[in-house]
Amino acid sequence: MSAWEKNVRRVLPYVPGEQPKEEGVIKLNTNENPYPPSPKVRAVLRDFDVSQLRRYPDPEAADLRAAVAKRNGIDPSCVFVGVGSDDVLAMAFLTFFNGGDPVLFPDITYSFYDVWAGLFSIPFETQPLREDFSVDPADYKKKNDGIVLPNPNAPTGLEAPSGLLEEIVRSNPDSVVIIDEAYVDFGAKSALPLIRAYDNLLVVQTFSKSRSLAGSRIGLAFGDPKLIACLNDCKFSFNSYTMDRLSLEIARAAIEDEAYFQETVQKIVATRERTKARLKEVGFSFPDSQGNFIFASHERLPARLLFERLKEKKIYVRYFDRPRIDGHLRITIGTDEEMESFCKAVSAILSQEGCNY
Amino acid sequence: MSAWEKNVRRVLPYVPGEQPKEEGVIKLNTNENPYPPSPKVRAVLRDFDVSQLRRYPDPEAADLRAAVAKRNGIDPSCVFVGVGSDDVLAMAFLTFFNGGDPVLFPDITYSFYDVWAGLFSIPFETQPLREDFSVDPADYKKKNDGIVLPNPNAPTGLEAPSGLLEEIVRSNPDSVVIIDEAYVDFGAKSALPLIRAYDNLLVVQTFSKSRSLAGSRIGLAFGDPKLIACLNDCKFSFNSYTMDRLSLEIARAAIEDEAYFQETVQKIVATRERTKARLKEVGFSFPDSQGNFIFASHERLPARLLFERLKEKKIYVRYFDRPRIDGHLRITIGTDEEMESFCKAVSAILSQEGCNY
Repeated sequence: MSAWEKNVRRVLPYVPGEQPKEEGVIKLNTNENPYPPSPKVRAVLRDFDVSQLRRYPDPEAADLRAAVAKRNGIDPSCVFVGVGSDDVLAMAFLTFFNGGDPVLFPDITYSFYDVWAGLFSIPFETQPLREDFSVDPADYKKKNDGIVLPNPNAPTGLEAPSGLLEEIVRSNPDSVVIIDEAYVDFGAKSALPLIRAYDNLLVVQTFSKSRSLAGSRIGLAFGDPKLIACLNDCKFSFNSYTMDRLSLEIARAAIEDEAYFQETVQKIVATRERTKARLKEVGFSFPDSQGNFIFASHERLPARLLFERLKEKKIYVRYFDRPRIDGHLRITIGTDEEMESFCKAVSAILSQEGCNY
Repeated sequence: MSAWEKNVRRVLPYVPGEQPKEEGVIKLNTNENPYPPSPKVRAVLRDFDVSQLRRYPDPEAADLRAAVAKRNGIDPSCVFVGVGSDDVLAMAFLTFFNGGDPVLFPDITYSFYDVWAGLFSIPFETQPLREDFSVDPADYKKKNDGIVLPNPNAPTGLEAPSGLLEEIVRSNPDSVVIIDEAYVDFGAKSALPLIRAYDNLLVVQTFSKSRSLAGSRIGLAFGDPKLIACLNDCKFSFNSYTMDRLSLEIARAAIEDEAYFQETVQKIVATRERTKARLKEVGFSFPDSQGNFIFASHERLPARLLFERLKEKKIYVRYFDRPRIDGHLRITIGTDEEMESFCKAVSAILSQEGCNY
């Protein structure tokens, strides 16, 4: 071991879902959108003045923040943008969780939260979800330095019941409460209107799922201007220019195309509901997902076996080898055609394994 | 004050150079390249399949790292990429400087180093440059957790004499030594070949200056595979997908166009040398810059006055209101036409102020 290694930060990195390079794959493993981004994105690339790339981008991302603010009926001072919601969340952990008391989040949730806590040496305590994967608000009324709750939760897809999140935000005026809304556009209710009432609430969203721009790395946070200013101070202490010129323009084109956004989201929701019905018929159960994925377990076949058999058929879904969720598969909602292929493949596997429905 | 503010990280953010929005400005204040990026970048935008933006980018940036490795005759495992060299440096500070002893860097240097140290609560000690802005290697042979040296230095433009950097790297086997080569392509000698001999050396470069891609946010680090693996572990604990799909393709196109790169760099170097001669004639002195800027002070007029007069004429240069350097202006090298306008404006200001040459 080299001597300098003693000063290296000890981390346990997040492992993203596989990005298979082979052709002909049906990829339902990283909650990507099956539809292309708004046609206005194509126009951005067509009309872009390449010579402008020699210049630094606007470090304030003012035009994009104005467009996002307008779409949401808020002031641009309530908007923060970053390199995907992971960048926004990393920056929020770094900015807000420095007190020494634990940060609280569910035991079954986005598996990056404990990675960020580890990276920044932030103490944390996971709060067990109930058997049905729902949140017990009492778990978030103990001493803490911060709270992180995704809504809908991932990988379960469950939306918090009305009023629960506001109850938690209201009960914790001394902590920043982050509501991670990566999947909110597929049918759940956003906590965004609550930022007017609670200056300790940070709502995080992304263009990766509902706006088909995972490849452009665009994330948002909404909050009280004071909260956003703190986030900006840390961002400007890390990297002045996080958002490149093309991503800024692409994001603005996407946020301004509300009609395309609504159309795409509605198609995915319809496909999700059809897929739920199909899966139920062949012995699967799952929480009533409001995301662009279904978190399903089969009454007879182990999730890992299904995962592996599907992969042999070039269909990638996500399997988490972790306590409480290793009986489930997280299945991203693709196009109708992709979900038809998926359902047929599942039925074939079930038959091969002697499970007839 | 809201109670949650007590847990907010205290920082003193970096302030980037102004990005004026008015038209007709001559912008010599942020060391941008006056020439557009390689024509191959335009081809990337023209041929890009927009529908692919729905997919996450390759988190390993394998194709870009392979292209960069090939260009430099090294293995891809020696290459790290990030969102500009600021992102790379921020990640390196976070990864390598965790021991408790101070990190060492010059008192006159890139003013982001102390911001990163502040952000991550890393103790640091600045080492005073000599009167002529050169580095005394003895300053970097005391107990430390890490060393950061830019070469050429910014904002002075001075290149370290041959052997000095290797002497410092060799004298500090227990620390990671970062050589920040943001400006190395404009005439200085890179420390890159030394990574084979020293596993504690991290060389950082950027596409923002010499490759005219400040707007695309592309930075590099080179080092021993073990060092790069540590950096990757922290990067994957912060944000799996930092580089978006378009930037990855743009970067690859740029690195593969060696001829355009050489041509552009040589034009800037020639303009720099002509500008040096002109400035000398009218009473300026400066270190012999090897960057794409000149750090000049006038024998009679205060730098701040020149800065303000130039700004009135819509010519932006950089003025640092800091001890030891508040008598200098940092002037980015633009096109020949821009530098002609700049020199004429300077002469006019000198005449107005009664300084005749």
